Amino acid sequence: MSDATQDIAGCLTQLGNMSGMKMSTALAVREQHGRDISHHKPQPPDAVVYPRSRDDVVAIVNICRAHRVPVIPYGAGTSLEGHISAPRGGVCVDMSEMNAIIAINASDLDAVVQPGVTRKTLNAHIRDTGLFFPIDPGADASIGGMAGTRASGTNAVRYGTMRENVLALEVVTADGRVIRTGSRARKSSAGLDLTRLFVGSEGLLGIFTELTVRLYGIPEVIAGASCAFETLEGAVNTTIATIQSGIPIARMELIDDVQVEAINRYAQLGLPPGNTLLMEFHGTAAGVEEQAKAVQAIAAGEGGAAFKWSVQAEQRTRIWQARHDAVWANQQMRPGWSMWPTDVCVPISQLADCILATKADIEREGLFAPVLGHVGDGNFHLTIFFDPADPASLPRIKLLNERLVRRALAMQGTCSGEHGIGLGKTQFMREEHGEAVDIMLAIKRALDPDNILNPGKMLGPGALPADRGAVARG
Amino acid sequence: MSDATQDIAGCLTQLGNMSGMKMSTALAVREQHGRDISHHKPQPPDAVVYPRSRDDVVAIVNICRAHRVPVIPYGAGTSLEGHISAPRGGVCVDMSEMNAIIAINASDLDAVVQPGVTRKTLNAHIRDTGLFFPIDPGADASIGGMAGTRASGTNAVRYGTMRENVLALEVVTADGRVIRTGSRARKSSAGLDLTRLFVGSEGLLGIFTELTVRLYGIPEVIAGASCAFETLEGAVNTTIATIQSGIPIARMELIDDVQVEAINRYAQLGLPPGNTLLMEFHGTAAGVEEQAKAVQAIAAGEGGAAFKWSVQAEQRTRIWQARHDAVWANQQMRPGWSMWPTDVCVPISQLADCILATKADIEREGLFAPVLGHVGDGNFHLTIFFDPADPASLPRIKLLNERLVRRALAMQGTCSGEHGIGLGKTQFMREEHGEAVDIMLAIKRALDPDNILNPGKMLGPGALPADRGAVARG
Repeated sequence: MSDATQDIAGCLTQLGNMSGMKMSTALAVREQHGRDISHHKPQPPDAVVYPRSRDDVVAIVNICRAHRVPVIPYGAGTSLEGHISAPRGGVCVDMSEMNAIIAINASDLDAVVQPGVTRKTLNAHIRDTGLFFPIDPGADASIGGMAGTRASGTNAVRYGTMRENVLALEVVTADGRVIRTGSRARKSSAGLDLTRLFVGSEGLLGIFTELTVRLYGIPEVIAGASCAFETLEGAVNTTIATIQSGIPIARMELIDDVQVEAINRYAQLGLPPGNTLLMEFHGTAAGVEEQAKAVQAIAAGEGGAAFKWSVQAEQRTRIWQARHDAVWANQQMRPGWSMWPTDVCVPISQLADCILATKADIEREGLFAPVLGHVGDGNFHLTIFFDPADPASLPRIKLLNERLVRRALAMQGTCSGEHGIGLGKTQFMREEHGEAVDIMLAIKRALDPDNILNPGKMLGPGALPADRGAVARG
Repeated sequence: MSDATQDIAGCLTQLGNMSGMKMSTALAVREQHGRDISHHKPQPPDAVVYPRSRDDVVAIVNICRAHRVPVIPYGAGTSLEGHISAPRGGVCVDMSEMNAIIAINASDLDAVVQPGVTRKTLNAHIRDTGLFFPIDPGADASIGGMAGTRASGTNAVRYGTMRENVLALEVVTADGRVIRTGSRARKSSAGLDLTRLFVGSEGLLGIFTELTVRLYGIPEVIAGASCAFETLEGAVNTTIATIQSGIPIARMELIDDVQVEAINRYAQLGLPPGNTLLMEFHGTAAGVEEQAKAVQAIAAGEGGAAFKWSVQAEQRTRIWQARHDAVWANQQMRPGWSMWPTDVCVPISQLADCILATKADIEREGLFAPVLGHVGDGNFHLTIFFDPADPASLPRIKLLNERLVRRALAMQGTCSGEHGIGLGKTQFMREEHGEAVDIMLAIKRALDPDNILNPGKMLGPGALPADRGAVARG
């Protein structure tokens, strides 16, 4: 699949000569950088470089473009759809050394960071300011990677996703130009919204070298709550009614019965068995009490038993840590197995039907696939486990995933709420977006005519029209 | 400036032959469609067409493209920066007959509408559902036009702008293709964010034929409040502290002393004189009381006198109507004069400095230019009045506006918070965005190679690099 005019040796020679920049071609380093935390086959790049400045990134892009070598930006390696693998070889640009926190503008509730800063590092850094950065995919992802994949997480129902929380970007484009998008103003109607175009572009349009993100005041009071339900419908209907009532809930997470059992075993939480909602309320003392009681009343009408809520930090922290560690809890249930994570997002009125049909499908297939989700957004995840020694399992999971996506699309939803497309979901791009994919391709070609930026992902062969699938460009 | 290959006569003949579609070439109709409600010189199109369906829009675009004739989408004609004028002639596409409300998905809190539906029509239609659509530019703009200009208004501080509230679009692109962007899911990481790219694209990339927008539950309790301040700093500092405290205020509007006087005369409101904040709180009874008292305490420390708040609808409605009618109140202060409206948006920490420096500038120039603003967002407006019979006034206002914009840009703000670029602010595009304008131009060229969609606006000659300004393309 590599370009005939590609000159990887010449490229690496020039990159290796860049003063003061680390580069590695060691197999172990390359393999580590070609692998994410999903089922996708690791595909190592030809080299990994570690830029320390915007100028380094410009030089890398210019050298790679001159040699027709793919450029793959790399944050913390926690993506889930093969975004960082190197199916056509090329140079992985590991941003971890660009990890400066440039400015905390506490009075404007924003922060300016380099892309390699992780979300936990940023939050630790600003703790004393009384502010926090709310976007929390499970892993300690880098802010640059989170912007690249339009990440969200448990707080998105109240605080939005990276789409809403990136104010401005500095980007190195495929022609080696440095542009700035957006400003520190909260809103603007000055020109095309390039910030939102670049957020979620998965490294296809440019490499971020600086990001301005929104911060929020740490709420005066935070209350956590959990509630087990007799049925999954009861839990989902409680979610739907809460959102429809306009209760400004900060987190609303569903963990299904299978997931509850795994978490209890892993973290000894002693959650009551059954489909469970984990919730969080942010506000004043009176406000969180009002919210919690309102949701409790809704839950009571939907078969929710033992609705517990508390403003104690300790129990709350344990619950959310366990929620974030769900993937490891699941792994413990199937030691040595591999996992295929996937997610979809649907209009909230469709959520119960979508989850129930999916659970029935999992059961029919006899698979181990806990369901959890940011259900306040209509978004849920499956982590489908499989024995890598069993060659029959992958094709079955592939079909299950296809049925899941088509179910979500038929309900006017999307093939991915927050994991993105990468390599894993290119085949669904045209099913979801139709000819709008051609508009995306036109933009990609206009901004990266040599197709050097993360080629083969998102708009790769699987996303081309059926009659062109076999003759992928670049 | 018209294209040598343009064939307007042939174009109008074919458009006139389209079955069942109204077209007008009457001067009065054309003049009305070439004029917005600002100071920009009316420039009538060659014809006005009134499509009734998506297929009509496709046919119009195809016919115009074949004849190299500009296509200018038109909503309610309430834009402020010359977006709808026809500097190169062409065909105005008046969307007012595409005014169907296609679906109200109450349980998903969204609505699907045709572009000609106005915001007030939508809100009247859904009143019985307990939902509302919050975006409220002063005028009763069309939803299509509001999406095209990325409109916002008084509720944006809580509910966001059109950027946050358009979920999905159906768009006819320059090649006559119909695409759909987004879905009814609340979030997605599936591909490039075309929805956000098209929102605010001012008719340069396509014509919207259907929009899916977010709705919200009408709050249980709404409280209005007003407070006059000894100084303008006091009012702005109250705003800054309110936002920084994370109080979820729904509206926070500044009207300066000049504006208060005009509104009092026009609407007999009897507001105390002085720089005044108008506020609104949404929530439960306890919630709005808590919010109002918190802001009252902040205001008291900033010289705010007579902080009044109330949950009575009548007084509140009068205040907000007066706020929305500010422009007419101002007009009454200078009968027969013309107005030059402008707006900027800055990081909130810069807001007091920006407004004070601007007020001093207005005073030095001896101009009548009330200041009001959506200050919770860092956004404020001037409406600069001038005697059209005085030829000296326009150049002075132009310079005042330039100083305003440069002041905002120096503070890391934007040249327009919500009015957009149109013809009026193209000259500032490169000052604000630098080479990012070239990325916008590359996208424009990729999606509209013949430059038929609203040519000359936003990315017109004023936005080209200095050495190309004189040789505008298309």
